[in-house]
Amino acid sequence: MMQWAIAATWPFGQSAVRVGSRLLDQGMSGLDAVEQAIRAVELDPSVDSVGVGGVPNCEGEVQLDAALMRGQDLAVGAVAGVKGFPNPISIARLVLEKTPHHLLVGEGAERYADAYGLERGPLLTASSLETWRKRREKQAQAEDPSLGGGHDTVGVVALDMNGDIAAGTSTSGLALKLPGRVGDSPLVGSGFYADNAAGAAVGTGCGELIMRGCLSFAIVELMKGGASAQQACEEALNRLICRLEQCLPVRNATEDMTKMAVLAIDQKGNVGAAANHGEFDFAYQTARDRELRIIRARIIA
Amino acid sequence: MMQWAIAATWPFGQSAVRVGSRLLDQGMSGLDAVEQAIRAVELDPSVDSVGVGGVPNCEGEVQLDAALMRGQDLAVGAVAGVKGFPNPISIARLVLEKTPHHLLVGEGAERYADAYGLERGPLLTASSLETWRKRREKQAQAEDPSLGGGHDTVGVVALDMNGDIAAGTSTSGLALKLPGRVGDSPLVGSGFYADNAAGAAVGTGCGELIMRGCLSFAIVELMKGGASAQQACEEALNRLICRLEQCLPVRNATEDMTKMAVLAIDQKGNVGAAANHGEFDFAYQTARDRELRIIRARIIA
Repeated sequence: MMQWAIAATWPFGQSAVRVGSRLLDQGMSGLDAVEQAIRAVELDPSVDSVGVGGVPNCEGEVQLDAALMRGQDLAVGAVAGVKGFPNPISIARLVLEKTPHHLLVGEGAERYADAYGLERGPLLTASSLETWRKRREKQAQAEDPSLGGGHDTVGVVALDMNGDIAAGTSTSGLALKLPGRVGDSPLVGSGFYADNAAGAAVGTGCGELIMRGCLSFAIVELMKGGASAQQACEEALNRLICRLEQCLPVRNATEDMTKMAVLAIDQKGNVGAAANHGEFDFAYQTARDRELRIIRARIIA
Repeated sequence: MMQWAIAATWPFGQSAVRVGSRLLDQGMSGLDAVEQAIRAVELDPSVDSVGVGGVPNCEGEVQLDAALMRGQDLAVGAVAGVKGFPNPISIARLVLEKTPHHLLVGEGAERYADAYGLERGPLLTASSLETWRKRREKQAQAEDPSLGGGHDTVGVVALDMNGDIAAGTSTSGLALKLPGRVGDSPLVGSGFYADNAAGAAVGTGCGELIMRGCLSFAIVELMKGGASAQQACEEALNRLICRLEQCLPVRNATEDMTKMAVLAIDQKGNVGAAANHGEFDFAYQTARDRELRIIRARIIA
């Protein structure tokens, strides 16, 4: 019997870890645990970058992305640009389980969710509307109207008692994004990857940069080659930074549009994390050490 | 001055190679050449898996995916689930050049294209409607109503006179797909990848399988590690097949839903290709050898 372990991005990931830990401890699969863990964050209106309460796009609409990956057979379920459903992660689960496809976008994903009776519900909150209004004003006043920033995906990686590995993500994406914009979170290999043969990884930060390096796949590949979860996170992120800094200033990021962070778990439940900034904390709990810990990621400078 | 080279998936890729070769020979950038090369295939109604004439989804609507990647800075422009535009590759180009984003889906992508005045036009043809009707009937009669198959993406890789590398893809996706289904073609690292530091790769076949192995990224990584384009294609595809065959019968594929093929180019313009079936031919032309050649890919058995 394996010892389970679960980790989630950001301090708000602790509600995910709490839910997931309880289920893993009851012997549930990593995939179930990750789905339920992410549902908890999606339903929390105080998290302004995931599910209900997520900051709207530039037109004031909330469009959500989510994904799940199963480490046994590398199967994926993902959705992107979905409106009106508080739990996009459960649509992703349906895509994984019920369709021959891996990714459904927009209206197609919404109608598929309707066909299975998934609950629709409002995503806007008083607080997210207020955040949106303030950012719009700031954007309108700025000489250079850049985008709104803020892109804190909940990413969860888990190892269950059977030794099965899973990964999942959910996000409302970049605040004030263009309608239809999709970041790394629902893109296999960029925002997430899971392979029982090595481990799993997730990304959070500027999705456009993370996807240029397929960071999650790169991390799992490095673990497959013998690197620890920590070494793999540092090495993959550092390689991308070294490659990009020839064209873009991505080292010691201070702007939201250049921040990246990654989190990984290996086959034994050890975790690793790295970021190109000093603000990335993650939540982590294992069967062995039953305390939920908030850990600061190593900075790649 | 580098010698240019360009390759495109499938025999219908020869119109892409012809257009691209002329532009590369005039000194145009790889990115321009790939975009124009793909436009030619998108506008050809006889190609039943790309642009105009592409086989519709299960509801009779044509939804298109396309992507471009620039090897200098790994920048991406991609669109998915787009209706009503004969040239989705040019929307992808707009995403790359004009937005801070890399991927726009559905209506958001369509409205962005409208804002720049890109041409709308019909995608259905008498022939694609007929193919659709026949497949629908066959599906309705079958005891096991599986999907329609057919997923021949045009993927183009190019090296220009400056030594810059680019990749691009365009497809109508799996025939009779669920509305909103997106395959590997617009997903960075899966359907395409390009890095001046090594080369570029594209995939065609069952997108759901190709994305489980992030095949295009994996190939470019192998080339970065010293493999030739041919070695990298064979090695990456073989690794994925070995990993998947524990759960899925993907060796010596005879079903559309398990067929995969990859095509790559290196920094010197050498090409490589591999498939898990015997039907994958690609088109190739270089500055040195001015003849357009149709080459059969190596089979991974």
